[in-house]
Amino acid sequence: MNTYEELRREVWKANLLLSEHRLALFTWGNVSGYDPDAGVVAIKPSGVPYDALTPEDIVVVSLEGEKVWGSLKPSSDTPTHLVLYREFPGLRGVTHTHAPFSVSWAQAGVDVPLYGTTHADHCVGPVPCTPYLSEGEVQEAYEEETGRLIVRTFKARGVQPLHTPMVLVAGHGPFTWGSSPEESVRHAVILEEICKMALWTRMTNPEVSSLPSYIARKHWERKHGPHAYYGQGS
Amino acid sequence: MNTYEELRREVWKANLLLSEHRLALFTWGNVSGYDPDAGVVAIKPSGVPYDALTPEDIVVVSLEGEKVWGSLKPSSDTPTHLVLYREFPGLRGVTHTHAPFSVSWAQAGVDVPLYGTTHADHCVGPVPCTPYLSEGEVQEAYEEETGRLIVRTFKARGVQPLHTPMVLVAGHGPFTWGSSPEESVRHAVILEEICKMALWTRMTNPEVSSLPSYIARKHWERKHGPHAYYGQGS
Amino acid sequence: MNTYEELRREVWKANLLLSEHRLALFTWGNVSGYDPDAGVVAIKPSGVPYDALTPEDIVVVSLEGEKVWGSLKPSSDTPTHLVLYREFPGLRGVTHTHAPFSVSWAQAGVDVPLYGTTHADHCVGPVPCTPYLSEGEVQEAYEEETGRLIVRTFKARGVQPLHTPMVLVAGHGPFTWGSSPEESVRHAVILEEICKMALWTRMTNPEVSSLPSYIARKHWERKHGPHAYYGQGS
Amino acid sequence: MNTYEELRREVWKANLLLSEHRLALFTWGNVSGYDPDAGVVAIKPSGVPYDALTPEDIVVVSLEGEKVWGSLKPSSDTPTHLVLYREFPGLRGVTHTHAPFSVSWAQAGVDVPLYGTTHADHCVGPVPCTPYLSEGEVQEAYEEETGRLIVRTFKARGVQPLHTPMVLVAGHGPFTWGSSPEESVRHAVILEEICKMALWTRMTNPEVSSLPSYIARKHWERKHGPHAYYGQGS
Repeated sequence: MNTYEELRREVWKANLLLSEHRLALFTWGNVSGYDPDAGVVAIKPSGVPYDALTPEDIVVVSLEGEKVWGSLKPSSDTPTHLVLYREFPGLRGVTHTHAPFSVSWAQAGVDVPLYGTTHADHCVGPVPCTPYLSEGEVQEAYEEETGRLIVRTFKARGVQPLHTPMVLVAGHGPFTWGSSPEESVRHAVILEEICKMALWTRMTNPEVSSLPSYIARKHWERKHGPHAYYGQGS
Repeated sequence: MNTYEELRREVWKANLLLSEHRLALFTWGNVSGYDPDAGVVAIKPSGVPYDALTPEDIVVVSLEGEKVWGSLKPSSDTPTHLVLYREFPGLRGVTHTHAPFSVSWAQAGVDVPLYGTTHADHCVGPVPCTPYLSEGEVQEAYEEETGRLIVRTFKARGVQPLHTPMVLVAGHGPFTWGSSPEESVRHAVILEEICKMALWTRMTNPEVSSLPSYIARKHWERKHGPHAYYGQGS
Repeated sequence: MNTYEELRREVWKANLLLSEHRLALFTWGNVSGYDPDAGVVAIKPSGVPYDALTPEDIVVVSLEGEKVWGSLKPSSDTPTHLVLYREFPGLRGVTHTHAPFSVSWAQAGVDVPLYGTTHADHCVGPVPCTPYLSEGEVQEAYEEETGRLIVRTFKARGVQPLHTPMVLVAGHGPFTWGSSPEESVRHAVILEEICKMALWTRMTNPEVSSLPSYIARKHWERKHGPHAYYGQGS
Repeated sequence: MNTYEELRREVWKANLLLSEHRLALFTWGNVSGYDPDAGVVAIKPSGVPYDALTPEDIVVVSLEGEKVWGSLKPSSDTPTHLVLYREFPGLRGVTHTHAPFSVSWAQAGVDVPLYGTTHADHCVGPVPCTPYLSEGEVQEAYEEETGRLIVRTFKARGVQPLHTPMVLVAGHGPFTWGSSPEESVRHAVILEEICKMALWTRMTNPEVSSLPSYIARKHWERKHGPHAYYGQGS
């Protein structure tokens, strides 16, 4: 019997990063990881604090949400994660937090403008903020509809999920993703930093405009383009 | 002779959480616990710093405020705690702090609007801010009148104390409560986080409106309703 | 020969509190202590970082500023401290920091209004901010004139230094004092907290008014009046 | 063969200070050092996190950017550092960070006004913010043009680089310099503190004006003029 031990350990470690980076108080955040070969997602159990979490507590479910390993209930946000894995090809990790600057922008209900190179190094444009879900969507399948809302928002705006690996759900908070559970947490840290700087930028200069697109593009390509030259390369 | 050792240890530990969570500098906060079977309340002594506090320093008083155990003077805020235990059935712990975001909203003298799901997970509506006490109330029985002011504010607005376990006293600061001393401290941490996010939300978008009530209700019921499905259940 | 060892150790320990409480980066703050029987003031040497400081580095000077013990140069702010000891009877410790919220209010050049009980527990009114020194005063005896400016400001407004143990010097930063070097540092911590809360209060509610004076008076008297009942008493 | 060991160790230690002082997350900052006798610059390698960095990872290049020691690729910001060493005589260390208050002012695209003595102790005037680079400059030689932009900005305004050892590059972030790699990091810490205080000062009093120039000059000369009297002297 496959116990998905490697995937569970990776997801367990990534969840511990949430409290290390102060992105989640108590049990307010969750990280999952996707193994495309096994076709399963491992995720934090619901309501368990980080300092009590063990690799054995991590729950493994199918892409459709059936439990395939573990004795605990998976995070109540699991259906949101699953929609993202099913609809956004290439994701291997997803993170949800209640980090305060990110939540504040989500509660404000507005996109985070691309004001500088810190942002441009990680996203090709503003960080999208979704609209609110409708009353019917909330009542029917709240968490799954949250995932669909994210997907719909990206499609409607023509945003590529691998080029903008983060979103704010209006009135709720951030979801981020990446090529591994750990990278999805790193994107949550970066989103928090981007949101903090964007608020302080606007307080410093309420008339500020976005970074010229030729500088934004240069920074993205320096790190991610075909001629990227940041880092030690491969 | 009953020395209330278990209750005193529980209250002592909860008081230490105040400085761990940076909710109180010096001696600026106090936690109490109520044992309904014994009919007594244990509370921090007045003016003793947290790192010098021992379980033996905790004072035990009757619900009417007579000392039944201990050699020190109880917190000067004791009469406020006692009113809350007498008037709000079901409380087992009460916390008062001077945490800076919570105090700032209390000094601003306004309710904390329900802007997002972090808030909705713990309260069914805005966090109420009381009006100021009158001059006569302050002169006669300041601390007891503070408790009565809280009770009066909740009754006048039809707010259920177990559904909104926190309040701001205008010009002063927060009081929170819960099903144990520790939970009342957890609610003080959460109130501080709610106040921080609410301020940053308004700075990000001064035109922000409250979370739609159908999303707020969903989040409350996900954690507290008869069909709650958050956590590992019982 | 009197080496003032006890006074120097007390002043040394109080200076270490500055970096512990994050009130001063690098060498940006200084604490002194006054021994009225010996008629001398011990103070931090100029430009020495806190983690390199020893009790032997502390310099002892007369009330008129002549060095009576030590091999290092005293803090360049020494003349300001000496004016305060000479003109404000009852001081035993003085602290100067560049703590960021306190400096921000000093740079803003405005008094800190008394918005709540955290402030009222320690001062009977707003924290005064001085005007700027004149060009002649700066050129002649900058540090001594800074002390005189503080004294002049308190006298002009009828503020009692023992009832409001803190001041902001416009464009510069805070000075605080107390019944010991340690208490003067504690007042610097409290001033930083008061300034932080006052800024956040105004951001939360730009129309906020001051705390009613009958509540402010009650809080001051609860701790400092003839019928004080806060703490364990004497 | 000269392996520049001393210079590399100095630069390695200064890079570690970036994460100690929380000026750079992940790999978001770099420090270099210049040895004028050897005519070489040592700098952090690109994309290596601070906790994995060893003195052997530090790369040594000529003033024109040719690698003379090391196996890794130097920081992608190396051409900016080199322009500063070539054009600003007297520099021995250069630091670039993404510290949040500094970046926020850079994103806001405005100079940091000289509001108080904390600022005046380290710079003779406002901290300049450059304009944006043009599209052609970005496409041709982005990092080198960033250096030229800084030099051009200082020359156009008549600012002496040794009297204002810091700059904000619009939409990007801070560069600071000094008489050693460590001093350039210290100036990055100070710039972050200056930016934080300047923002809070303006929020406290939107009508604030700059510090009178005679006070600013006094503070600069107290520390840096021919009659400087701060510190223990030489």
